[in-house]
Amino acid sequence: MQFHHHGYVSQDPRIAPAEGTGIDRPGDLPDEVDVLIVGSGPAGMLLAAQLAQYPSVTTRIIEQREGRLALGQADGIQPRSVETFQAFGFAERIIAEAYNIGWMNFWAPDPAAPDRIVRTSRTEDYGYKICEFPHLIVNQARVLDYFAEAAHHGPARITPDYGVEFVSLTVHDDGPYPVEVTVRYTAGDRAGLERSIRCAYVAGCDGARSRVREAIGRHHVGSFAQHAWGVMDVLVDTDFPDWRIKCAINAEAGNILHIPREGGYLSRMYIDLGEVAADDAHRVRQTPLEEIIRRANDIMHPYTLSVRHVAWHSVYEVGHRVTDQFDDSDGDTREPRVFLAGDACHTHSAKAGQGMNVSMQDAFNLGWKLGAVITGQSPAELLRTYSSERQPVAQQLIDFDREWSSLMARKPEEITDPQELATYYLATAEFPSGFATQYEPSLITDTAEYQQYATGFPVGKRFHSSPVTRVCDGNVVQLGHHARADGRWRIYVFGDRSGAVLQQTGEWLSSPESPIARFTPRGESIDAVFDVKAIHQQSFSEIDQLASPPVFLPRSGPFALVDWEKVFAAPVTVGCPSDIFDERGISRDGAIVVVRPDQYVAAVLPLQATAQLDTFLSGVFMNPA
Amino acid sequence: MQFHHHGYVSQDPRIAPAEGTGIDRPGDLPDEVDVLIVGSGPAGMLLAAQLAQYPSVTTRIIEQREGRLALGQADGIQPRSVETFQAFGFAERIIAEAYNIGWMNFWAPDPAAPDRIVRTSRTEDYGYKICEFPHLIVNQARVLDYFAEAAHHGPARITPDYGVEFVSLTVHDDGPYPVEVTVRYTAGDRAGLERSIRCAYVAGCDGARSRVREAIGRHHVGSFAQHAWGVMDVLVDTDFPDWRIKCAINAEAGNILHIPREGGYLSRMYIDLGEVAADDAHRVRQTPLEEIIRRANDIMHPYTLSVRHVAWHSVYEVGHRVTDQFDDSDGDTREPRVFLAGDACHTHSAKAGQGMNVSMQDAFNLGWKLGAVITGQSPAELLRTYSSERQPVAQQLIDFDREWSSLMARKPEEITDPQELATYYLATAEFPSGFATQYEPSLITDTAEYQQYATGFPVGKRFHSSPVTRVCDGNVVQLGHHARADGRWRIYVFGDRSGAVLQQTGEWLSSPESPIARFTPRGESIDAVFDVKAIHQQSFSEIDQLASPPVFLPRSGPFALVDWEKVFAAPVTVGCPSDIFDERGISRDGAIVVVRPDQYVAAVLPLQATAQLDTFLSGVFMNPA
Repeated sequence: MQFHHHGYVSQDPRIAPAEGTGIDRPGDLPDEVDVLIVGSGPAGMLLAAQLAQYPSVTTRIIEQREGRLALGQADGIQPRSVETFQAFGFAERIIAEAYNIGWMNFWAPDPAAPDRIVRTSRTEDYGYKICEFPHLIVNQARVLDYFAEAAHHGPARITPDYGVEFVSLTVHDDGPYPVEVTVRYTAGDRAGLERSIRCAYVAGCDGARSRVREAIGRHHVGSFAQHAWGVMDVLVDTDFPDWRIKCAINAEAGNILHIPREGGYLSRMYIDLGEVAADDAHRVRQTPLEEIIRRANDIMHPYTLSVRHVAWHSVYEVGHRVTDQFDDSDGDTREPRVFLAGDACHTHSAKAGQGMNVSMQDAFNLGWKLGAVITGQSPAELLRTYSSERQPVAQQLIDFDREWSSLMARKPEEITDPQELATYYLATAEFPSGFATQYEPSLITDTAEYQQYATGFPVGKRFHSSPVTRVCDGNVVQLGHHARADGRWRIYVFGDRSGAVLQQTGEWLSSPESPIARFTPRGESIDAVFDVKAIHQQSFSEIDQLASPPVFLPRSGPFALVDWEKVFAAPVTVGCPSDIFDERGISRDGAIVVVRPDQYVAAVLPLQATAQLDTFLSGVFMNPA
Repeated sequence: MQFHHHGYVSQDPRIAPAEGTGIDRPGDLPDEVDVLIVGSGPAGMLLAAQLAQYPSVTTRIIEQREGRLALGQADGIQPRSVETFQAFGFAERIIAEAYNIGWMNFWAPDPAAPDRIVRTSRTEDYGYKICEFPHLIVNQARVLDYFAEAAHHGPARITPDYGVEFVSLTVHDDGPYPVEVTVRYTAGDRAGLERSIRCAYVAGCDGARSRVREAIGRHHVGSFAQHAWGVMDVLVDTDFPDWRIKCAINAEAGNILHIPREGGYLSRMYIDLGEVAADDAHRVRQTPLEEIIRRANDIMHPYTLSVRHVAWHSVYEVGHRVTDQFDDSDGDTREPRVFLAGDACHTHSAKAGQGMNVSMQDAFNLGWKLGAVITGQSPAELLRTYSSERQPVAQQLIDFDREWSSLMARKPEEITDPQELATYYLATAEFPSGFATQYEPSLITDTAEYQQYATGFPVGKRFHSSPVTRVCDGNVVQLGHHARADGRWRIYVFGDRSGAVLQQTGEWLSSPESPIARFTPRGESIDAVFDVKAIHQQSFSEIDQLASPPVFLPRSGPFALVDWEKVFAAPVTVGCPSDIFDERGISRDGAIVVVRPDQYVAAVLPLQATAQLDTFLSGVFMNPA
């Protein structure tokens, strides 16, 4: 966390000074808006938090509810989401209050007495195995609280406009605000009043029954499956020994996915309600709570649950649907103006704990692109990459969830290998962790031509952090954790053995001809668009940081102070025995790794490939006006 | 963090529901107060945060300033303080914003050119070496913010009464509120108005010039030394390579203690201003800032500092003073009613980074004792242990600081071994880390008779945490981090090899004859006074937690839910190869370790020593009314 460089900050340094649209931000919706976000769920709130970093952009977020969400349904937080929270500045706080999934246990019928369940395996969860972030359970309402705080503490000071619903939209052909949106107030003196707002862009984060999706004529394709589940968050008295461990319970009487919740007492249970007849017409949704509890007891026999308090419950049928395209663009003729994110694009079962996570990644993908295009940093065609990148991820999600759900819903006699579920759970961990996404080559994702220079940073996948030593203070830090969700691109320059080529490349990056100088608007700090970091092979005590080329010692702010936190040493003095070159397969001849604002690797290049770097960045950036 | 057990908690679980005096807490000072805290510095605010856990106690904290402290002078946070912050629930947040001291470098004259300094050694700081908490730098104002939040979020909802100063007090002989305090409003409509308040107890946390100290006639004993220092928090342009590393610089031109501050740019420099003549009469305090900066440049030659911004500066002479007694008690005839804590008790140089830390430990020692006596849990004589425990610590602090200051103030020709400072710094690390304090046997500190049953938990020293596995969910956690600053006593019951004696002792602890049952007021949860935990030698998967005696599965709240987080297994599945029995020298025959609410070890006993445990606790606790 860097602060004090514009003068002493007395209060919470997480609160950025208000700038631009964040100064005297109007309380009511203005008539013209750069980005209108519809819906304040995980996708909408992350998008607001991201756009709060663009104070020149007028962003509003409308929500038909009158206020904060009190109790959300989603609660599974994958490691990639915690990594994302780190970039938004609240990972350590949400980790402190969440349930950490350390294990997943599997239960099945006792062969000797098949009406009784027995524990068949204990499986260490993938959380900390797959990266430095845990796999958590915490209520969606709290996730939204933290994003709301980040949105409000960003320079654009974004807060939701509660009590306003989306009615319809029309995309006109010209002008800076081509999207005409009709909204209706749902609360207060103006309840029922409709008004029209002109928007440059609209993001439909309005859930599975998205009206924005309907307005742009996109289709949510798929079908309801014929299997019903009851779900409840309960406080109980029980003799079930795994009450505080995530479990998949496969009994003769049905199946339960059991997930302990934050706080040490509450657990969530997904209870199998069996096949649904074709002519059921959703009657299963009327299943009373008492029946769900009775089923749970049947499944858990010989253990019993005495439910003392129900915080929430519901019944649903598993549906798997995905939207055909995530924006309103029309082939090659019109750039997109309206986007869909989150449940508006993909609906599926809750049991793999994916929904909220994938939704947030949709928004993380979209947010910086909107910011870059609206501020004139990148061409409008950048926005086409949103749908082309995220729609395949949604399809993968649906496929994964369908397979996982059907595995979970099997009857005991269908299971030949009791270890199969456990095996599948671990073998596929990269996907539910959120790290399997790999974007295809595009404007912003280079080919894998030079992948061998950093095999551990696959082009198109998220940048996987590793510990390094910060040269200025000798502290061991996570290289990737310096990257905050501030809309900047990162260029990691990994040094060669002697450091001579690193120095040359650094000099070139510091020169007026470099893409960094060309694509950074005049008057802004040289690190305003690109955050450039050097990682040396030498140990930190051998490095003369002050001899670095200027790009690694950028000056900014009213006092033109040097930023000391751009230069790192690969060897770490405590902890890991190997260094980042070993861990991420980086060539000892050095490498350049370009990382997008949403933390995905855009390009891997040889250390001296300055021309290729220039070519790549020239495709992404425009010369400032 | 445990919550949801009284029903679903939608908002921040760190905010406890208001109870007792926290419900409709009056905005203005009432006429009768149980505890009046004078001063809202680190001691006063910790005390308020602690007493916020006692909603039956009326606690008020007066501060003559009109509002929050904007910029404090203290900034060194020792590991013991971070450990304390953990108990108050904000360690992870303050760590995220602080500067972490990883190294301390030493600089001395270059033998070849003595007017130039050279780095003579790099010393890894003691932070993470000595415990699981770091050694930090963060502004006192932020520490106070976090304690203010903890005080306000506790059930008693304590907030400071700003704009009220202490004038005088008289201790009367009888009645429940024997201390008559005169206060004066310093701001608002009532500025200048005096009024009288009756208090049960008064805590003078009102700094080096404490008026409370004066009012009870205690003496601040010591003298001003004859050495002056300038101190400044500055943003600079410099070629000094260690600008972001803590350094002791010993040059021909004088000495500097250089301490990087939080945020990546600011550093604090303590600059030697040399000997002060006996007849100086504090004229040295008029030294202009320009002169301090000039001296700094002279000392750092050949490096230069170009100061761009000064956040704060001051000049002071080193004084070492300690108060003779920390309360108003009068031999054996009168129990104490007025206490002193923090700078009111001990003043010294700032350079060992001790002041704020020792002050907070004063308050942590006092807070629970006031709570226990006022609520009738313990006899009033408990309060005598405050001065008897803390006064010797203050004396040790003064002695340490005098030695460290004089080492730091030496001229190069006085230094025979250039490694001496580095050696002293590390050799004495336990003291400045805050872990050297060891209380003498008393009402609340048993003798070391059974110390061999847990050699790593010295009786009278703070309980040193170690990782264990929580049986209910298989998560590896720090055993000591479950202990929050909630005023409860902890009884850690370490199991024997087979677990049979653990079971017996657990049964006894669960019985109506046990001190737990006897000293817990009727109608309160069985864990309201004592938080009892079992630590097995077996691995977590071998333990049938639900077979534990009731004391390890206490029920509480409206739903009588079992607390699952009382049973631990010594083997940890990840991380440390050894277990807590090895790390803390615990007998494989088991042991009982009793820990006070301020985290100090009160007693170590054999696992079967139930009679001795009863005897010890019977000295501390009274039968509830």
